Amino acid sequence: MTPATSPPVVCYDCGSAFSFPERTRCDCGEPLWFDVELEPGDFGAAVYAAVRQEGSDVGPTAADPPASATSIWRYATGLPGVAPVGLASGTGGTPLYRLAALDDYAGCTLRVKHEGVNPTGSFKDRGTAVAVSHVVATGGDWIGTVSHGNMALSTAAYAASAGLECAVFVPAHTPASRLETIGKHGPHVFAVDGDYGRLYEETLALADETGVCFVNSDTPLRVAGQKTVAYEIVEALATDPPDAIALPVSSGGHASGVWKALRELRAVGLLDSLPRIYLVQAAACDPIAAAYREGHAEVTPVTPGETIAVSIANPDPPSGTRALAAVRETGGAVCSVDDDAIGEAGERLATDAGLSVEPSSATALAGVRELARRGEIAPDDSVVLVLTGSGYKYQEAGGGDDQVASVRRVTLDEIAVALEDVTGGDGGQRT
Amino acid sequence: MTPATSPPVVCYDCGSAFSFPERTRCDCGEPLWFDVELEPGDFGAAVYAAVRQEGSDVGPTAADPPASATSIWRYATGLPGVAPVGLASGTGGTPLYRLAALDDYAGCTLRVKHEGVNPTGSFKDRGTAVAVSHVVATGGDWIGTVSHGNMALSTAAYAASAGLECAVFVPAHTPASRLETIGKHGPHVFAVDGDYGRLYEETLALADETGVCFVNSDTPLRVAGQKTVAYEIVEALATDPPDAIALPVSSGGHASGVWKALRELRAVGLLDSLPRIYLVQAAACDPIAAAYREGHAEVTPVTPGETIAVSIANPDPPSGTRALAAVRETGGAVCSVDDDAIGEAGERLATDAGLSVEPSSATALAGVRELARRGEIAPDDSVVLVLTGSGYKYQEAGGGDDQVASVRRVTLDEIAVALEDVTGGDGGQRT
Repeated sequence: MTPATSPPVVCYDCGSAFSFPERTRCDCGEPLWFDVELEPGDFGAAVYAAVRQEGSDVGPTAADPPASATSIWRYATGLPGVAPVGLASGTGGTPLYRLAALDDYAGCTLRVKHEGVNPTGSFKDRGTAVAVSHVVATGGDWIGTVSHGNMALSTAAYAASAGLECAVFVPAHTPASRLETIGKHGPHVFAVDGDYGRLYEETLALADETGVCFVNSDTPLRVAGQKTVAYEIVEALATDPPDAIALPVSSGGHASGVWKALRELRAVGLLDSLPRIYLVQAAACDPIAAAYREGHAEVTPVTPGETIAVSIANPDPPSGTRALAAVRETGGAVCSVDDDAIGEAGERLATDAGLSVEPSSATALAGVRELARRGEIAPDDSVVLVLTGSGYKYQEAGGGDDQVASVRRVTLDEIAVALEDVTGGDGGQRT
Repeated sequence: MTPATSPPVVCYDCGSAFSFPERTRCDCGEPLWFDVELEPGDFGAAVYAAVRQEGSDVGPTAADPPASATSIWRYATGLPGVAPVGLASGTGGTPLYRLAALDDYAGCTLRVKHEGVNPTGSFKDRGTAVAVSHVVATGGDWIGTVSHGNMALSTAAYAASAGLECAVFVPAHTPASRLETIGKHGPHVFAVDGDYGRLYEETLALADETGVCFVNSDTPLRVAGQKTVAYEIVEALATDPPDAIALPVSSGGHASGVWKALRELRAVGLLDSLPRIYLVQAAACDPIAAAYREGHAEVTPVTPGETIAVSIANPDPPSGTRALAAVRETGGAVCSVDDDAIGEAGERLATDAGLSVEPSSATALAGVRELARRGEIAPDDSVVLVLTGSGYKYQEAGGGDDQVASVRRVTLDEIAVALEDVTGGDGGQRT
């Protein structure tokens, strides 16, 4: 089931090819991704069948059936040859909702891909699913990551489900509530005092020395998993692909995966042209948006400010330049939005669409609204927002009292009167 | 698309039939459920096709495709004739995991149905999906519920996504953090001082007066939606149905839905016999378990004590007697477990399976373990646990510090040494 060797990893920029896991960066400094060449026949079970309106008959590669019929393993031929283990087998297959109620607000024809319903509540699970399954397939016992947020939780939970030991490196002074959530799955947590940022890249070299396979945001294994969200979007909208896909951007690994998938689908004839990729950052920490504004070819580090979109506040994104290339090749854009706009967008998703998302996810809606105001997105453009994470993991400790009406419970009639006060007494068709 | 009238509602006990929505209770006092007679041909798209190993060609009943290919709307012929609206269209299709790592702990061949990945993080979404869609289909503007937990959140979010106004009745002194979560979706929240318990049933009569359609735990609309989890379990294990299904029990509505679905599948020849239904309660509040232990035919109210499984602490379950009938007809059992056992089971799910669940969900695992100890469940029995809700909504404010190792960040070598201290230096195959 598992190939003896992984497919090669290649540079999107200069085209150089290398072996994995020995290399994750090109000689030119840019990150590498797996070079998977799709064949229409290979991919018959999923995207290809949907686009061509054919029946599907290709099963998953795993010996056991996946836990979910629409998991990412439908696209196994596009992944680096691993069989799903543990939570991995129920990853992906997330809903794609049409949100007509927010069309006016967003300034386009709006759909959202609700990644918050993955097993640990975020898009990170797609990359983790591939990474954890790879480590098991290649005989490893340990997996590691440098994160104090969604990626840490996802890696710890998936490792637990696959029988792997897990090392998580968090910054010193990470809030205890966050450590509690991650710690439930039993990882070894290391609080790092000092320069946390560079640890991201340095740890990738630790595999040989320590036997721990580090799977940080833009490693080829993660990018391969993150690709599947774009496969799913194109499959769901097979007969009428979206004009654009918008997502928040942090390391650039997610954006890279979306770009890679779209390129693969075009190469095999399943897309005539690439949907435009729009990336959104919080204004307080927007190195990729800054490089885009200033017309630079490369992303350089910024000094971060404070933002409520903490999980995308990355001042030195390791795949930032690749993300910029994705935007430029697809005719998209990068923009940044302030915390007020992010907060408002999050409220609109909650009240008009029933969706509770983390602030980083709301950033994508605020960004699309801003791009529509600027005229970069047209009202009749079909845009899919990727809502990257659930809001249920990020709740404040209080509040909410102000909207509550108190009812002294005496008789049912009094309850009815209280209700009629707000409904006007004609709430339904039966009155 | 929507039938002019709903199917009849019938009594499981005496067989009397009534019209919906006029009646939700039988003259004998027992709750009613929709009487859906499946035909193998009608149900070809899902369970029938899976069991018979045939291709599927029946689409959803909605004009727009559902947001998820494996949503509950695959089973539209088993539901009371409504088209999905808003979040409803992406409900269900949850993963079914095989948890071999916990077989010894549970004392059986263990699988779990992970309901926490529904849109608002709990099994309640299935019932809400049907209820909200029904209210829209019948021209209503308001939906209501009596809950301060998963059902309140689910109803508020789904109502927001469907353009409905929502009234939520919570007990006075509900924690502010919980109101915050529910309140984000903009419902009208009423804090009720006084006897909260009876409000559950009394509000069902308010529709005529106020125009608000109340969809509490065991109303026929909810039970119809809750049925779909059993359809999915049987479909996924089509060629080898489980010996038993175990779930936590509160109102008895969920258990009723599972029982109803299994009866339907047997009636149409898709199950030879019914899997045994095992129900589990927290020892501090276990009216259904008490009635089972004492051999009573009916469930009577108890005085509740404190338990960590707050969302199933229902001292007067409205469908308790029906749930008891489900257990007796299928040869199952009801048991209760103490908070220590619940806590331990939750920890095992987190550390050995990567699953974060609310304490009520962990109750099911603790119960199966207890039943296996008693010999009611055999080691080679195939048992599916329904994990009803995500643990991410129920996080403590602190803790977690005790498991953290501190690393002073000076050199990469020091990081490697810290790692080697825990891995023993041979974590992977590459050392």
